[in-house]
Amino acid sequence: MTSQHNVLTLGHTARLAALREKLRETGLDGFIIPRADEHLGEYVPESAERLAFCSGFTGSAGLAIVLLDRAAVFSDGRYTLQLESETDGALWERLHITENPPEAWLKEHAAGRKIGYDPWLLSADALNRFTGAEMVAVASNPVDEIWADRPAPPMAPAVPRALALAGEDSGSKRARLAATLAEAGQDAAVLTDPASLAWLFNLRGSDVAFTPIALGFAILHADATAAIFMAGAKLPPETRAHLGNQVATAERSALPGALAALAGKTVRYDPASMPVWFKTTLEAAGAKLAEAVDPVALPRACKNAAEQEGTRAAHLRDGVAMARFLAWLAESAPSGRETEMSAAEKLLAFRAQGENFRGESFPAISGAGAHGAIIHYRVSPESNRAIKPNEMYLIDSGAQYLDGTTDITRTVWTGPGPAPAAEKDHVTRVLAGHIALATAVFPEGVAGPHLDAFARAALWQAGLDYDHGTGHGVGVFLSVHEGPAGISRAAKNVPLKPGMILSNEPGYYLPGAYGIRLENLLLVQNAMFVEQKRKFLRFDTLTLAPFDRALIEPELLTPAALKWLNGYHARVLAELGPFLEAPVLAWLQAAAAPI
Amino acid sequence: MTSQHNVLTLGHTARLAALREKLRETGLDGFIIPRADEHLGEYVPESAERLAFCSGFTGSAGLAIVLLDRAAVFSDGRYTLQLESETDGALWERLHITENPPEAWLKEHAAGRKIGYDPWLLSADALNRFTGAEMVAVASNPVDEIWADRPAPPMAPAVPRALALAGEDSGSKRARLAATLAEAGQDAAVLTDPASLAWLFNLRGSDVAFTPIALGFAILHADATAAIFMAGAKLPPETRAHLGNQVATAERSALPGALAALAGKTVRYDPASMPVWFKTTLEAAGAKLAEAVDPVALPRACKNAAEQEGTRAAHLRDGVAMARFLAWLAESAPSGRETEMSAAEKLLAFRAQGENFRGESFPAISGAGAHGAIIHYRVSPESNRAIKPNEMYLIDSGAQYLDGTTDITRTVWTGPGPAPAAEKDHVTRVLAGHIALATAVFPEGVAGPHLDAFARAALWQAGLDYDHGTGHGVGVFLSVHEGPAGISRAAKNVPLKPGMILSNEPGYYLPGAYGIRLENLLLVQNAMFVEQKRKFLRFDTLTLAPFDRALIEPELLTPAALKWLNGYHARVLAELGPFLEAPVLAWLQAAAAPI
Repeated sequence: MTSQHNVLTLGHTARLAALREKLRETGLDGFIIPRADEHLGEYVPESAERLAFCSGFTGSAGLAIVLLDRAAVFSDGRYTLQLESETDGALWERLHITENPPEAWLKEHAAGRKIGYDPWLLSADALNRFTGAEMVAVASNPVDEIWADRPAPPMAPAVPRALALAGEDSGSKRARLAATLAEAGQDAAVLTDPASLAWLFNLRGSDVAFTPIALGFAILHADATAAIFMAGAKLPPETRAHLGNQVATAERSALPGALAALAGKTVRYDPASMPVWFKTTLEAAGAKLAEAVDPVALPRACKNAAEQEGTRAAHLRDGVAMARFLAWLAESAPSGRETEMSAAEKLLAFRAQGENFRGESFPAISGAGAHGAIIHYRVSPESNRAIKPNEMYLIDSGAQYLDGTTDITRTVWTGPGPAPAAEKDHVTRVLAGHIALATAVFPEGVAGPHLDAFARAALWQAGLDYDHGTGHGVGVFLSVHEGPAGISRAAKNVPLKPGMILSNEPGYYLPGAYGIRLENLLLVQNAMFVEQKRKFLRFDTLTLAPFDRALIEPELLTPAALKWLNGYHARVLAELGPFLEAPVLAWLQAAAAPI
Repeated sequence: MTSQHNVLTLGHTARLAALREKLRETGLDGFIIPRADEHLGEYVPESAERLAFCSGFTGSAGLAIVLLDRAAVFSDGRYTLQLESETDGALWERLHITENPPEAWLKEHAAGRKIGYDPWLLSADALNRFTGAEMVAVASNPVDEIWADRPAPPMAPAVPRALALAGEDSGSKRARLAATLAEAGQDAAVLTDPASLAWLFNLRGSDVAFTPIALGFAILHADATAAIFMAGAKLPPETRAHLGNQVATAERSALPGALAALAGKTVRYDPASMPVWFKTTLEAAGAKLAEAVDPVALPRACKNAAEQEGTRAAHLRDGVAMARFLAWLAESAPSGRETEMSAAEKLLAFRAQGENFRGESFPAISGAGAHGAIIHYRVSPESNRAIKPNEMYLIDSGAQYLDGTTDITRTVWTGPGPAPAAEKDHVTRVLAGHIALATAVFPEGVAGPHLDAFARAALWQAGLDYDHGTGHGVGVFLSVHEGPAGISRAAKNVPLKPGMILSNEPGYYLPGAYGIRLENLLLVQNAMFVEQKRKFLRFDTLTLAPFDRALIEPELLTPAALKWLNGYHARVLAELGPFLEAPVLAWLQAAAAPI
């Protein structure tokens, strides 16, 4: 670590000096470097890893500000240690992004100065938070100018998604969305989220890790025609044929001209999620901006019958892999010979045996003992440790199958001894919350923030809680983190709708000791009652894997909760059983037996 | 009814004609008449009942628009029947205020026309919703000009509130608030809510029904001095002495001058709750507006120790009155000789025996059978009906005591026969929700919208719900409806704080059959745990009265809920018992016996 660290530091010292030289040449007093690409999404291609190039910090969320005489790099509590180890304290102040917000730091150290930013890498909302300095949009990113061996942008092909999997052709989707634009008096909408392009045009790609998207932009018109802006090399003939003659394609360089052609039109654009470049370019073109969220977000979240069927099929395969993995773990863990890394690799191998498997949906979190308490722990060769007998082990992982995306967390007691009472108490409270949410019934109009407390009540009664949301949206062979709905107090007030897929993942974390998280995916469905006066909704659990009975204290569950648990385990056994080899089936029969 | 109706109609025809003549004289095409006074509060003095004067409609919420050739009066679902019966369909379109919003009606019938409004009677937010017409502020309200016998504004004295009851003197309160103004960079704040004046200056009054306030305005400065604008006749010498030399007093006519003196200052003002007159006057004066909620709202909601003690004492007295009433009702109801009105009068008489009683905190809702399903039912000589044997009876009422404000709803089965299973099922689900909220424990930061579902979950599980919020804030010898926090999906995201008093009133309504509502007041308190890592809160129930055991189906309650119910009943008996005469005590002993 030490020598490697020095080599990095040397590189970063020179890079920082070169960047400052560029800033001086262009008359700037500083520059903002967010960890973002031009789509402002979660996963970015290597060509957009400017923050890592400049500072060394490789975390998935962060931002640096480089002034001529000082520099700071900001990230959140997940990355406090990583930020310290990857960056050089002599070059960078390392700060917590919410405790020491970049906006306040800039105001303190650069009031009134000229600070550059790349208008492709900040949303209008993010830009507006930087007050006090004179913010200057650069035409060309100075980091790219000093990044001699910058990787080329990814050029993976965009491939058509079969109608049998998509469930609705692009023409129908575009007509639906175009009608909502027309109704709102909007002539066109800008789309900058590649997952929105993927859904709207029934395309998938492989430009970034974990999420099967093709990077690109689009304009949807109120007449249901559209234009995609994407390198021609990424659009093979069969994809062009799939898109049809109502969808034009052009290089990204054609985007400014296409926006200029919207002069006088009302164009839908989201200041929270889209690069501010779109705002300034549209305004300069004389377009009228209608600020609203991405029109794809809500329709994409409501999965149609084909997508629901595909997701169920993917969960069946994922459940088979999980059963094999958990059976293997139950046998292997007490030996103490397996590690966090070997376990994650084993699970990946089981999943890879499944039909339609296309990779993980995010980097697996495989944490034994105290590592389980690190909510976004990512095992590395340096952090890897043995999974020991008689401890807690948490694994949060997911897969991309061609027909669906999975995300599951289980927490197990490695044995062979019995689990202590405290662990059982904590796990059972988390499970009680999980079940309370899984069994919730609620009228139309209720949103995630109104349901979050169901998953916490059993913990709250003991003065306990967890510092993350309870649930996030999940796509279908798309992003494992998908808007617009979520189950958390901080989530938007988006009413839940039939077809939405959301995670149900309460937890509890005892730093230095262990972490607990129990996660299934839920599908929102209509709930039927005799003589009901309004529409009610309920959840159907998609994920199929048993919860570790060694960690459940039945007396802490209500009879209704215990009934749900036994019913769920019976269903897991019934659905997975036919696909399991004898030893795994025997394990599952015991694991899923009534409590 | 009919002859009275004709007389009213005659008057209203002439009034409408006179108002239109006034509009023509001033070059206006129409005029907005909200049911509001200059404080935009819930209860208004007779002198501000302009909507009733013009239209005949006496409901507590509504608005009329008078054009030269047509007129409409709008109210909500509570008042649909009353609106039809009190107004003349030949003169007025009678419309539902959310289904047919006044803004849309105005746009349809008066696009581009000059529509007058009284800037004292509309907030800036309300005014801004009227788009499409040219909105013209009038200097003098034309309704007042045609209202020959308009009552004089109320002139009840503002009286000092004893420090023992207020718990904090005005100087300390003003210093606390002034510090928050200074911290926010605000030089002064406008106060237009008389309840804010009442709290800040430790004053009470009797200008309007049900809420012991003195109507007036105030300006609080960031140096903790203040000025009250109120008729001198309402400020007797002992009140002036009580206010001290840091609080100036002046006639309301001095208000424009006082605002003009704020030129160049930053003045806090709330566009949602304050008359738009303040905005236009401050802007014309050259003041800078800082839009923010009334700075008194949050501190007022967090009751100090003296206020909590007073409220508990008031609830003890109220509980004694409720026990006498419920015992009387249990004995009288099966006879069928009592009525909704006689019962409400009886309860009032029991309350009036209590020390410090000052009147009702709102008009009692006394509804037998199907009347109970009318959420805001108000019994009148016309609607009054007998309370019959073997039916449901709902009474929602409250009192103002000098030391505290109460609000309680009970739903009883009149007997003598047993309650049907459906009624018991519905009541027990409402009770389960009531108990789930009463026993909730939650961390700091949680707001009412996050807890509302606890009170509904048992109903939702059966496909049932209720169409009102679960809880509202309550003052201390102040308004029974007090912001800023509430327990409802529509409530503001105001985190609950220790000392807040909120109602807990889930219900269920079966139109044409019966209504159920079970309401206690809750006090937010700190919850203590061993080794807790963050601050947790819980509720303490203030209200003391048994729930009708004839309507409870114990098997529908969890053991924990039943334990709470039995504990609550034991507490009710222990606290009220010492004050009850033998027959009532005997009744309460039976009513509060363990289930």
